[in-house]
Amino acid sequence: MSVIEEMLNAYPKPLAAADTAALVECIAACLECSQACTACADACLAEDMVSDLVACIRTDLGCADICATTATILSRQTAPDAATMRAIVEACRTACSSCAEECEKHSHMHEHCRVCAEACRRCEKACADLLATL
Amino acid sequence: MSVIEEMLNAYPKPLAAADTAALVECIAACLECSQACTACADACLAEDMVSDLVACIRTDLGCADICATTATILSRQTAPDAATMRAIVEACRTACSSCAEECEKHSHMHEHCRVCAEACRRCEKACADLLATL
Amino acid sequence: MSVIEEMLNAYPKPLAAADTAALVECIAACLECSQACTACADACLAEDMVSDLVACIRTDLGCADICATTATILSRQTAPDAATMRAIVEACRTACSSCAEECEKHSHMHEHCRVCAEACRRCEKACADLLATL
Amino acid sequence: MSVIEEMLNAYPKPLAAADTAALVECIAACLECSQACTACADACLAEDMVSDLVACIRTDLGCADICATTATILSRQTAPDAATMRAIVEACRTACSSCAEECEKHSHMHEHCRVCAEACRRCEKACADLLATL
Repeated sequence: MSVIEEMLNAYPKPLAAADTAALVECIAACLECSQACTACADACLAEDMVSDLVACIRTDLGCADICATTATILSRQTAPDAATMRAIVEACRTACSSCAEECEKHSHMHEHCRVCAEACRRCEKACADLLATL
Repeated sequence: MSVIEEMLNAYPKPLAAADTAALVECIAACLECSQACTACADACLAEDMVSDLVACIRTDLGCADICATTATILSRQTAPDAATMRAIVEACRTACSSCAEECEKHSHMHEHCRVCAEACRRCEKACADLLATL
Repeated sequence: MSVIEEMLNAYPKPLAAADTAALVECIAACLECSQACTACADACLAEDMVSDLVACIRTDLGCADICATTATILSRQTAPDAATMRAIVEACRTACSSCAEECEKHSHMHEHCRVCAEACRRCEKACADLLATL
Repeated sequence: MSVIEEMLNAYPKPLAAADTAALVECIAACLECSQACTACADACLAEDMVSDLVACIRTDLGCADICATTATILSRQTAPDAATMRAIVEACRTACSSCAEECEKHSHMHEHCRVCAEACRRCEKACADLLATL
């Protein structure tokens, strides 16, 4: 059992989330994707062809920021605001989809883009699955 | 001229933003609101009646996180993704509206809630104004 | 192999880190601890005795912020600044130590504090181990 | 009076900070510097000579992250931990000094580096001034 699950199980009141498995999956996917996007932007900066990767770097940075904030918002069960939660998960799904699309253009040349694109696709799906339960 | 404007003016390519005044205003409002929400959550924690302010603390924390991320995303002009930008500004407007509503319940008793509610309403409006230009 | 390791292996230049295992461990521990602290602050807010947990909430929030930023800084290998890296890992170790100490006071009563304290101690150790290699 | 000051004045208990003017100045400088560094990294990405600005981009990104977290930590007065506060302000001063030094190398060629370097120097000084009061 991950610490994310342990913390959710230790919450002292009934959970706001209808589907805790989808919630745990989405928090984990957001954290993984945020880290991967930060590292991918940095790896792109280290490539000799950095000027070809400018859009990828920028998209990575934005996706990293939004995924990190989404993980934080989803980690709170107290006094939830459904509209805000839905809006941030929608933004996260959008950012992950856009970043995956950009990284996939470079996946055949850059392993970091391939790994990052997969993390983005997992996070995009986890957001979609969570939205379906909200 | 604020540093936000100076940095925007120093951007070396044509700006993605159609209305730079609305963009500068929204970045400034997001930074101000994020700080106010962080401080309001903290001031609520210091109140003797903290148990009456639990929803306010939680809403403040979420609004602070989303405003900070929105300020960061809006500070980038390179390779913008319109769908992601729109989605995060929508999420920010939603979070500010929800936080203003919650803080307004306590504005007559707690000055920090009054000041924070006003910062949230300014940021909500700045997000709406920016969305109208996107 | 975790995505953190995959991304590190995909970095196109020689790594700045002398000990990649310690680096991976520290990034993972920071992400885990940041999420646990966010969730612990939220669980404390949901306790009937929230007024007894004010210091724990505040310490959790600060530790969550610092761990998240440390994970981000450590995820970058390009053009590293040794002084900044050392300073942020020191700050993270200090925050984790302080948060663990606070959460341990409530571990016998609140399972979320027990789980969070353990995450803080793991992250404190991971920071210390990484500092020893810098 | 800025919202930062209004929020500090509205805090319901005695302030932890010995010198509130230095505290307000440091929070404002951290927010300004964080935004400037985010925008400078983005402007560097948009330069034709992006490959010459890789170190600047990376240093900007790290400085932006640390300044944002420092502003958040300093915005809380409740149950402060002196060691953590000192450590994060030290990290912020270090990051600002390093980022200013890097940006100053490009200030004659790039206005965004000039403006950003000045914001970093102001924040470095504000951190030093605050540390002197802790």
